[in-house]
Amino acid sequence: MKTLVLVSHPEYNDSMTEAFLKQSQSDLKDVDWVVLDQLNHQPSFDVEKEQHRWLQYDRIILQFPMYWYSAPALMKQYEDDVFTRNFIYADRHGWLNGKELGIVTTLGDPEKDYQVGGREGFSISELLKPYQAVAQKAGMKFLKPFVVSQFAYMTVKDKKELLVSYRNYLTNEDFDSFKSKQVWYIEQLKQINSELPEDKQLSMQILIDYIQDNYDQLDELHWELEMIKKEEDE
Amino acid sequence: MKTLVLVSHPEYNDSMTEAFLKQSQSDLKDVDWVVLDQLNHQPSFDVEKEQHRWLQYDRIILQFPMYWYSAPALMKQYEDDVFTRNFIYADRHGWLNGKELGIVTTLGDPEKDYQVGGREGFSISELLKPYQAVAQKAGMKFLKPFVVSQFAYMTVKDKKELLVSYRNYLTNEDFDSFKSKQVWYIEQLKQINSELPEDKQLSMQILIDYIQDNYDQLDELHWELEMIKKEEDE
Repeated sequence: MKTLVLVSHPEYNDSMTEAFLKQSQSDLKDVDWVVLDQLNHQPSFDVEKEQHRWLQYDRIILQFPMYWYSAPALMKQYEDDVFTRNFIYADRHGWLNGKELGIVTTLGDPEKDYQVGGREGFSISELLKPYQAVAQKAGMKFLKPFVVSQFAYMTVKDKKELLVSYRNYLTNEDFDSFKSKQVWYIEQLKQINSELPEDKQLSMQILIDYIQDNYDQLDELHWELEMIKKEEDE
Repeated sequence: MKTLVLVSHPEYNDSMTEAFLKQSQSDLKDVDWVVLDQLNHQPSFDVEKEQHRWLQYDRIILQFPMYWYSAPALMKQYEDDVFTRNFIYADRHGWLNGKELGIVTTLGDPEKDYQVGGREGFSISELLKPYQAVAQKAGMKFLKPFVVSQFAYMTVKDKKELLVSYRNYLTNEDFDSFKSKQVWYIEQLKQINSELPEDKQLSMQILIDYIQDNYDQLDELHWELEMIKKEEDE
Protein backbone atom coordinates (compact mmCIF):
# COMPACT_ATOMS: atom_id res chain seq x y z
CA MET A 1 0.00 0.00 0.00
CA LYS A 2 1.37 3.43 -0.98
CA THR A 3 0.52 6.49 1.09
CA LEU A 4 0.77 10.18 0.23
CA VAL A 5 0.81 12.82 2.97
CA LEU A 6 -0.18 16.28 1.69
CA VAL A 7 0.72 18.88 4.30
CA SER A 8 -0.50 22.47 4.45
CA HIS A 9 0.83 24.72 7.21
CA PRO A 10 1.38 28.48 6.75
CA GLU A 11 4.27 28.33 9.24
CA TYR A 12 5.59 24.94 8.24
CA ASN A 13 9.23 25.60 8.99
CA ASP A 14 8.50 26.80 12.52
CA SER A 15 6.06 24.05 13.44
CA MET A 16 7.42 21.62 16.03
CA THR A 17 4.47 19.30 15.41
CA GLU A 18 5.12 19.09 11.67
CA ALA A 19 8.84 18.54 12.29
CA PHE A 20 8.02 15.69 14.67
CA LEU A 21 5.52 14.07 12.31
CA LYS A 22 7.91 14.39 9.36
CA GLN A 23 10.67 12.73 11.36
CA SER A 24 8.27 10.01 12.55
CA GLN A 25 7.65 8.75 9.03
CA SER A 26 10.92 9.61 7.29
CA ASP A 27 12.19 6.00 7.09
CA LEU A 28 8.94 4.54 5.72
CA LYS A 29 9.62 3.73 2.10
CA ASP A 30 6.00 3.46 0.96
CA VAL A 31 5.08 6.88 2.34
CA ASP A 32 5.70 10.12 0.44
CA TRP A 33 5.53 13.56 2.03
CA VAL A 34 4.60 16.71 0.09
CA VAL A 35 4.26 20.22 1.54
CA LEU A 36 1.78 22.33 -0.45
CA ASP A 37 3.36 25.57 0.78
CA GLN A 38 6.59 24.49 -0.94
CA LEU A 39 5.00 23.76 -4.33
CA ASN A 40 4.51 26.41 -6.96
CA HIS A 41 0.91 27.53 -6.49
CA GLN A 42 0.69 30.92 -8.15
CA PRO A 43 -1.62 31.67 -9.77
CA SER A 44 -2.61 27.99 -9.58
CA PHE A 45 -1.24 24.57 -8.64
CA ASP A 46 -0.13 22.38 -11.56
CA VAL A 47 -3.45 20.58 -12.04
CA GLU A 48 -2.24 17.80 -14.34
CA LYS A 49 0.81 17.03 -12.22
CA GLU A 50 -1.20 16.96 -8.98
CA GLN A 51 -3.97 14.78 -10.41
CA HIS A 52 -1.33 12.39 -11.71
CA ARG A 53 0.22 12.37 -8.24
CA TRP A 54 -3.03 11.21 -6.60
CA LEU A 55 -3.27 8.27 -8.99
CA GLN A 56 0.03 6.79 -7.68
CA TYR A 57 -1.30 6.20 -4.14
CA ASP A 58 -3.80 4.00 -2.34
CA ARG A 59 -4.15 6.23 0.71
CA ILE A 60 -4.03 10.02 0.52
CA ILE A 61 -3.80 12.01 3.73
CA LEU A 62 -4.53 15.71 4.08
CA GLN A 63 -2.54 17.03 7.04
CA PHE A 64 -3.06 20.49 8.50
CA PRO A 65 -3.49 22.52 11.68
CA MET A 66 -7.13 23.48 12.30
CA TYR A 67 -7.55 27.15 11.33
CA TRP A 68 -11.02 28.49 12.09
CA TYR A 69 -12.52 25.00 12.12
CA SER A 70 -11.17 24.06 8.70
CA ALA A 71 -7.91 23.64 6.74
CA PRO A 72 -5.72 26.68 5.98
CA ALA A 73 -6.66 28.60 2.83
CA LEU A 74 -3.88 27.03 0.76
CA MET A 75 -5.31 23.53 1.24
CA LYS A 76 -8.64 24.90 -0.02
CA GLN A 77 -6.88 26.47 -3.01
CA TYR A 78 -5.36 23.07 -3.76
CA GLU A 79 -8.85 21.56 -3.75
CA ASP A 80 -10.32 24.36 -5.85
CA ASP A 81 -7.50 24.05 -8.42
CA VAL A 82 -6.84 20.32 -8.57
CA PHE A 83 -10.31 18.84 -8.03
CA THR A 84 -11.89 19.19 -11.44
CA ARG A 85 -15.33 17.61 -11.74
CA ASN A 86 -14.08 14.95 -14.13
CA PHE A 87 -11.34 14.01 -11.68
CA ILE A 88 -13.56 13.73 -8.61
CA TYR A 89 -17.02 12.62 -9.74
CA ALA A 90 -17.05 8.87 -9.14
CA ASP A 91 -19.89 8.37 -11.61
CA ARG A 92 -17.95 9.87 -14.52
CA HIS A 93 -14.54 8.19 -14.63
CA GLY A 94 -13.98 6.98 -11.12
CA TRP A 95 -10.28 7.95 -11.09
CA LEU A 96 -10.18 7.83 -7.31
CA ASN A 97 -12.70 5.07 -6.79
CA GLY A 98 -11.69 2.71 -3.98
CA LYS A 99 -8.77 4.82 -2.74
CA GLU A 100 -8.72 6.11 0.85
CA LEU A 101 -8.83 9.68 2.12
CA GLY A 102 -7.47 10.39 5.60
CA ILE A 103 -7.19 13.58 7.63
CA VAL A 104 -4.44 14.35 10.13
CA THR A 105 -5.28 17.53 11.98
CA THR A 106 -3.49 19.29 14.81
CA LEU A 107 -5.29 21.31 17.48
CA GLY A 108 -4.07 23.96 19.87
CA ASP A 109 -6.90 23.16 22.29
CA PRO A 110 -7.66 19.83 23.97
CA GLU A 111 -9.67 17.43 21.79
CA LYS A 112 -12.24 17.07 24.59
CA ASP A 113 -13.34 20.69 23.99
CA TYR A 114 -14.68 19.64 20.59
CA GLN A 115 -18.12 18.27 21.49
CA VAL A 116 -21.61 19.44 22.37
CA GLY A 117 -21.40 21.43 25.57
CA GLY A 118 -17.62 21.69 25.21
CA ARG A 119 -15.79 24.98 24.76
CA GLU A 120 -15.69 24.50 20.99
CA GLY A 121 -19.20 23.10 20.78
CA PHE A 122 -18.69 21.15 17.56
CA SER A 123 -17.04 17.77 17.11
CA ILE A 124 -14.16 17.09 14.75
CA SER A 125 -16.52 14.74 12.88
CA GLU A 126 -18.99 17.57 12.31
CA LEU A 127 -16.35 20.09 11.27
CA LEU A 128 -14.74 17.73 8.75
CA LYS A 129 -17.99 16.95 6.87
CA PRO A 130 -16.87 18.95 3.80
CA TYR A 131 -13.91 16.54 3.38
CA GLN A 132 -16.12 13.53 3.98
CA ALA A 133 -18.44 14.89 1.27
CA VAL A 134 -15.53 15.13 -1.21
CA ALA A 135 -14.49 11.55 -0.39
CA GLN A 136 -18.05 10.38 -0.93
CA LYS A 137 -18.28 12.22 -4.25
CA ALA A 138 -15.00 10.62 -5.37
CA GLY A 139 -16.00 7.11 -4.29
CA MET A 140 -13.14 7.12 -1.75
CA LYS A 141 -13.24 5.50 1.67
CA PHE A 142 -13.10 8.25 4.29
CA LEU A 143 -10.82 7.19 7.14
CA LYS A 144 -11.39 8.04 10.77
CA PRO A 145 -9.45 11.31 11.24
CA PHE A 146 -6.22 11.28 13.21
CA VAL A 147 -6.17 14.14 15.71
CA VAL A 148 -3.05 15.49 17.43
CA SER A 149 -3.95 17.96 20.16
CA GLN A 150 -1.69 20.19 22.21
CA PHE A 151 1.58 18.72 20.98
CA ALA A 152 3.50 21.35 22.98
CA TYR A 153 2.24 19.88 26.26
CA MET A 154 3.03 16.24 25.42
CA THR A 155 5.32 14.18 27.62
CA VAL A 156 8.11 12.06 26.14
CA LYS A 157 5.90 9.00 26.61
CA ASP A 158 2.94 10.71 24.84
CA LYS A 159 5.24 11.53 21.95
CA LYS A 160 6.47 7.95 21.66
CA GLU A 161 2.89 6.76 21.52
CA LEU A 162 2.07 9.44 18.95
CA LEU A 163 4.99 8.29 16.79
CA VAL A 164 3.78 4.70 16.79
CA SER A 165 0.11 5.50 16.23
CA TYR A 166 0.94 7.99 13.45
CA ARG A 167 3.04 5.39 11.63
CA ASN A 168 0.18 2.97 12.12
CA TYR A 169 -2.30 5.50 10.60
CA LEU A 170 -0.05 6.04 7.59
CA THR A 171 0.82 2.46 6.75
CA ASN A 172 -1.51 -0.06 8.39
CA GLU A 173 -4.19 -1.15 5.93
CA ASP A 174 -6.60 -1.85 8.77
CA PHE A 175 -5.29 0.77 11.20
CA ASP A 176 -8.31 0.95 13.46
CA SER A 177 -8.68 -2.74 14.35
CA PHE A 178 -7.03 -3.99 17.53
CA LYS A 179 -6.09 -7.30 15.91
CA SER A 180 -4.52 -5.63 12.93
CA LYS A 181 -2.59 -3.24 15.16
CA GLN A 182 -1.08 -6.25 16.99
CA VAL A 183 0.06 -7.85 13.75
CA TRP A 184 1.47 -4.52 12.63
CA TYR A 185 3.37 -3.99 15.93
CA ILE A 186 4.90 -7.48 15.72
CA GLU A 187 6.05 -6.80 12.16
CA GLN A 188 7.58 -3.49 13.22
CA LEU A 189 9.43 -5.15 16.09
CA LYS A 190 10.73 -7.94 13.87
CA GLN A 191 12.09 -5.38 11.46
CA ILE A 192 13.78 -3.40 14.22
CA ASN A 193 15.24 -6.63 15.60
CA SER A 194 16.72 -7.65 12.26
CA GLU A 195 18.70 -4.41 12.27
CA LEU A 196 20.09 -4.84 15.79
CA PRO A 197 23.58 -6.18 16.51
CA GLU A 198 23.39 -9.97 16.98
CA ASP A 199 24.06 -9.94 20.72
CA LYS A 200 20.99 -7.75 21.29
CA GLN A 201 18.64 -9.82 19.19
CA LEU A 202 17.90 -12.54 21.72
CA SER A 203 16.26 -10.38 24.39
CA MET A 204 14.24 -8.61 21.71
CA GLN A 205 13.19 -11.97 20.29
CA ILE A 206 11.89 -13.02 23.71
CA LEU A 207 9.74 -9.88 23.79
CA ILE A 208 8.43 -10.53 20.30
CA ASP A 209 7.59 -14.12 21.19
CA TYR A 210 5.74 -12.90 24.24
CA ILE A 211 3.62 -10.47 22.18
CA GLN A 212 3.11 -13.16 19.54
CA ASP A 213 1.82 -15.54 22.24
CA ASN A 214 -0.57 -12.85 23.45
CA TYR A 215 -1.75 -12.33 19.93
CA ASP A 216 -2.31 -16.06 19.36
CA GLN A 217 -4.36 -16.29 22.54
CA LEU A 218 -6.38 -13.27 21.44
CA ASP A 219 -6.95 -14.84 18.07
CA GLU A 220 -8.21 -18.03 19.71
CA LEU A 221 -10.60 -16.04 21.93
CA HIS A 222 -11.91 -14.23 18.85
CA TRP A 223 -12.54 -17.56 17.17
CA GLU A 224 -14.41 -18.93 20.18
CA LEU A 225 -16.51 -15.77 20.42
CA GLU A 226 -17.43 -16.10 16.77
CA MET A 227 -18.61 -19.67 17.37
CA ILE A 228 -20.77 -18.63 20.34
CA LYS A 229 -22.36 -15.80 18.33
CA LYS A 230 -23.03 -18.18 15.46
CA GLU A 231 -24.78 -20.66 17.76
CA GLU A 232 -26.89 -17.87 19.24
CA ASP A 233 -28.01 -16.86 15.77
CA GLU A 234 -29.13 -20.41 14.91
CA MET B 1 -29.60 48.08 11.02
CA LYS B 2 -26.50 48.14 8.80
CA THR B 3 -25.59 45.12 6.70
CA LEU B 4 -22.32 44.18 5.03
CA VAL B 5 -22.23 41.64 2.19
CA LEU B 6 -18.77 40.12 1.68
CA VAL B 7 -18.68 38.29 -1.64
CA SER B 8 -16.07 35.78 -2.79
CA HIS B 9 -16.38 34.35 -6.29
CA PRO B 10 -13.34 33.37 -8.41
CA GLU B 11 -15.30 34.26 -11.57
CA TYR B 12 -17.20 37.18 -10.14
CA ASN B 13 -17.44 39.19 -13.36
CA ASP B 14 -18.90 36.28 -15.30
CA SER B 15 -21.39 35.17 -12.67
CA MET B 16 -25.01 35.84 -13.66
CA THR B 17 -26.11 34.99 -10.12
CA GLU B 18 -23.79 37.54 -8.52
CA ALA B 19 -24.83 40.19 -11.06
CA PHE B 20 -28.48 39.53 -10.22
CA LEU B 21 -27.92 39.63 -6.46
CA LYS B 22 -25.85 42.82 -6.71
CA GLN B 23 -28.58 44.49 -8.75
CA SER B 24 -31.24 43.27 -6.29
CA GLN B 25 -29.75 45.21 -3.39
CA SER B 26 -28.12 48.17 -5.17
CA ASP B 27 -30.74 50.72 -4.01
CA LEU B 28 -30.67 49.67 -0.33
CA LYS B 29 -28.87 52.43 1.51
CA ASP B 30 -28.07 50.48 4.68
CA VAL B 31 -26.43 47.64 2.78
CA ASP B 32 -22.80 47.70 1.60
CA TRP B 33 -21.35 45.29 -0.92
CA VAL B 34 -17.67 44.29 -0.95
CA VAL B 35 -16.05 41.78 -3.32
CA LEU B 36 -13.01 40.09 -1.75
CA ASP B 37 -11.55 39.22 -5.16
CA GLN B 38 -11.36 42.97 -5.89
CA LEU B 39 -9.52 43.89 -2.68
CA ASN B 40 -5.77 43.78 -2.42
CA HIS B 41 -5.06 40.41 -0.80
CA GLN B 42 -1.44 39.67 -1.59
CA PRO B 43 0.34 38.51 0.43
CA SER B 44 -2.42 39.26 2.94
CA PHE B 45 -5.64 41.24 3.33
CA ASP B 46 -5.36 44.52 5.23
CA VAL B 47 -6.14 43.12 8.68
CA GLU B 48 -6.70 46.41 10.51
CA LYS B 49 -8.89 47.86 7.76
CA GLU B 50 -11.00 44.71 7.50
CA GLN B 51 -11.47 44.35 11.25
CA HIS B 52 -12.50 48.01 11.41
CA ARG B 53 -14.96 47.33 8.58
CA TRP B 54 -16.72 44.58 10.55
CA LEU B 55 -17.25 46.91 13.50
CA GLN B 56 -19.42 49.24 11.37
CA TYR B 57 -22.17 46.67 10.78
CA ASP B 58 -24.85 44.81 12.71
CA ARG B 59 -25.25 41.98 10.21
CA ILE B 60 -22.35 40.57 8.20
CA ILE B 61 -23.07 38.19 5.35
CA LEU B 62 -20.53 35.89 3.71
CA GLN B 63 -21.69 35.24 0.15
CA PHE B 64 -20.10 32.62 -2.09
CA PRO B 65 -20.74 29.75 -4.52
CA MET B 66 -20.25 26.35 -2.87
CA TYR B 67 -16.86 24.99 -4.03
CA TRP B 68 -16.21 21.47 -2.77
CA TYR B 69 -18.68 21.81 0.08
CA SER B 70 -17.16 25.03 1.41
CA ALA B 71 -16.33 28.62 0.44
CA PRO B 72 -13.72 29.34 -2.26
CA ALA B 73 -10.11 29.49 -1.02
CA LEU B 74 -10.03 33.31 -1.01
CA MET B 75 -12.85 33.50 1.55
CA LYS B 76 -10.80 31.13 3.73
CA GLN B 77 -7.72 33.33 3.24
CA TYR B 78 -9.81 36.30 4.39
CA GLU B 79 -10.72 34.37 7.55
CA ASP B 80 -7.14 33.20 8.14
CA ASP B 81 -5.80 36.76 7.72
CA VAL B 82 -8.48 38.92 9.33
CA PHE B 83 -9.72 36.72 12.17
CA THR B 84 -7.07 37.20 14.80
CA ARG B 85 -7.82 35.52 18.12
CA ASN B 86 -8.23 38.81 19.92
CA PHE B 87 -10.73 39.95 17.30
CA ILE B 88 -12.89 36.81 17.37
CA TYR B 89 -12.75 35.34 20.87
CA ALA B 90 -15.90 36.58 22.57
CA ASP B 91 -14.43 36.01 26.02
CA ARG B 92 -11.46 38.32 25.42
CA HIS B 93 -12.82 41.61 24.06
CA GLY B 94 -16.12 40.67 22.49
CA TRP B 95 -15.65 42.99 19.49
CA LEU B 96 -18.29 41.12 17.53
CA ASN B 97 -20.53 40.18 20.43
CA GLY B 98 -24.22 40.45 19.56
CA LYS B 99 -23.67 41.01 15.83
CA GLU B 100 -25.17 38.61 13.28
CA LEU B 101 -23.39 36.34 10.81
CA GLY B 102 -25.30 35.19 7.74
CA ILE B 103 -24.34 32.97 4.81
CA VAL B 104 -25.63 33.34 1.26
CA THR B 105 -24.51 30.39 -0.81
CA THR B 106 -25.22 29.46 -4.41
CA LEU B 107 -25.44 25.87 -5.63
CA GLY B 108 -25.19 24.37 -9.08
CA ASP B 109 -27.24 21.37 -8.00
CA PRO B 110 -30.78 21.33 -6.58
CA GLU B 111 -30.95 22.02 -2.86
CA LYS B 112 -32.97 18.82 -2.35
CA ASP B 113 -29.83 16.80 -3.21
CA TYR B 114 -28.23 18.06 0.00
CA GLN B 115 -29.64 15.64 2.57
CA VAL B 116 -29.19 12.11 3.86
CA GLY B 117 -29.88 9.73 1.02
CA GLY B 118 -29.68 12.59 -1.49
CA ARG B 119 -27.04 12.75 -4.22
CA GLU B 120 -24.85 15.02 -2.09
CA GLY B 121 -25.56 13.14 1.13
CA PHE B 122 -24.84 16.06 3.47
CA SER B 123 -27.12 18.95 4.36
CA ILE B 124 -26.18 22.61 3.99
CA SER B 125 -26.50 22.85 7.79
CA GLU B 126 -23.90 20.12 8.25
CA LEU B 127 -21.49 21.55 5.69
CA LEU B 128 -21.62 25.07 7.14
CA LYS B 129 -20.73 24.01 10.71
CA PRO B 130 -17.24 25.60 10.48
CA TYR B 131 -18.90 29.03 9.96
CA GLN B 132 -21.40 28.37 12.74
CA ALA B 133 -18.44 27.52 15.00
CA VAL B 134 -16.76 30.86 14.17
CA ALA B 135 -20.01 32.71 14.93
CA GLN B 136 -20.29 30.90 18.25
CA LYS B 137 -16.68 31.71 19.14
CA ALA B 138 -17.29 35.38 18.33
CA GLY B 139 -20.53 35.57 20.30
CA MET B 140 -22.41 36.31 17.07
CA LYS B 141 -25.90 35.08 16.23
CA PHE B 142 -25.67 32.65 13.33
CA LEU B 143 -28.50 33.28 10.88
CA LYS B 144 -30.29 30.57 8.95
CA PRO B 145 -28.32 30.36 5.68
CA PHE B 146 -29.87 31.72 2.50
CA VAL B 147 -29.45 29.22 -0.34
CA VAL B 148 -29.81 30.02 -4.05
CA SER B 149 -29.81 26.87 -6.13
CA GLN B 150 -29.69 26.50 -9.90
CA PHE B 151 -30.15 30.17 -10.72
CA ALA B 152 -29.67 29.40 -14.42
CA TYR B 153 -32.89 27.38 -14.48
CA MET B 154 -35.06 29.95 -12.67
CA THR B 155 -38.19 31.35 -14.26
CA VAL B 156 -38.92 35.09 -14.24
CA LYS B 157 -41.36 34.52 -11.37
CA ASP B 158 -38.72 32.56 -9.39
CA LYS B 159 -36.28 35.41 -9.87
CA LYS B 160 -38.82 38.01 -8.67
CA GLU B 161 -39.36 35.94 -5.54
CA LEU B 162 -35.61 35.57 -5.09
CA LEU B 163 -35.17 39.34 -5.31
CA VAL B 164 -37.75 39.97 -2.59
CA SER B 165 -36.54 37.22 -0.25
CA TYR B 166 -32.88 38.24 -0.72
CA ARG B 167 -33.70 41.86 0.19
CA ASN B 168 -35.63 40.51 3.16
CA TYR B 169 -32.59 38.43 4.24
CA LEU B 170 -30.28 41.45 4.02
CA THR B 171 -32.45 44.03 5.75
CA ASN B 172 -35.23 42.51 7.82
CA GLU B 173 -34.20 42.32 11.45
CA ASP B 174 -36.46 39.32 12.01
CA PHE B 175 -36.27 37.91 8.48
CA ASP B 176 -37.43 34.39 9.26
CA SER B 177 -40.72 35.14 11.04
CA PHE B 178 -43.88 35.13 8.94
CA LYS B 179 -45.32 38.06 10.89
CA SER B 180 -42.20 40.14 10.50
CA LYS B 181 -42.05 39.39 6.77
CA GLN B 182 -45.59 40.75 6.43
CA VAL B 183 -44.68 43.99 8.17
CA TRP B 184 -41.55 44.25 6.03
CA TYR B 185 -43.50 43.66 2.79
CA ILE B 186 -46.04 46.32 3.72
CA GLU B 187 -43.24 48.81 4.43
CA GLN B 188 -41.60 48.00 1.12
CA LEU B 189 -44.87 48.48 -0.75
CA LYS B 190 -45.57 51.79 1.00
CA GLN B 191 -42.17 53.04 -0.02
CA ILE B 192 -42.65 51.96 -3.64
CA ASN B 193 -46.06 53.62 -3.61
CA SER B 194 -44.70 56.92 -2.33
CA GLU B 195 -42.44 57.05 -5.37
CA LEU B 196 -45.18 56.33 -7.91
CA PRO B 197 -46.93 59.07 -9.91
CA GLU B 198 -50.03 60.23 -8.02
CA ASP B 199 -52.56 58.72 -10.42
CA LYS B 200 -51.09 55.26 -9.82
CA GLN B 201 -51.05 55.49 -6.05
CA LEU B 202 -54.71 54.73 -5.44
CA SER B 203 -54.75 51.20 -6.86
CA MET B 204 -51.51 50.41 -5.06
CA GLN B 205 -53.00 51.78 -1.83
CA ILE B 206 -55.95 49.41 -2.19
CA LEU B 207 -53.51 46.50 -2.44
CA ILE B 208 -51.58 47.67 0.59
CA ASP B 209 -54.80 48.03 2.61
CA TYR B 210 -55.77 44.53 1.61
CA ILE B 211 -52.45 43.11 2.83
CA GLN B 212 -52.69 45.24 5.96
CA ASP B 213 -56.16 43.80 6.67
CA ASN B 214 -54.78 40.30 6.22
CA TYR B 215 -51.98 41.11 8.58
CA ASP B 216 -54.33 42.51 11.24
CA GLN B 217 -56.48 39.38 11.07
CA LEU B 218 -53.37 37.25 11.38
CA ASP B 219 -52.26 39.27 14.37
CA GLU B 220 -55.64 38.72 16.04
CA LEU B 221 -55.47 34.98 15.40
CA HIS B 222 -51.99 34.91 16.93
CA TRP B 223 -53.32 36.68 20.00
CA GLU B 224 -56.22 34.25 20.40
CA LEU B 225 -53.86 31.32 19.98
CA GLU B 226 -51.61 32.71 22.71
CA MET B 227 -54.61 32.95 25.05
CA ILE B 228 -55.65 29.35 24.37
CA LYS B 229 -52.10 28.09 24.99
CA LYS B 230 -51.93 30.07 28.21
CA GLU B 231 -55.21 28.57 29.50
CA GLU B 232 -53.94 25.09 28.64
CA ASP B 233 -50.85 25.71 30.70
CA GLU B 234 -52.84 26.76 33.76
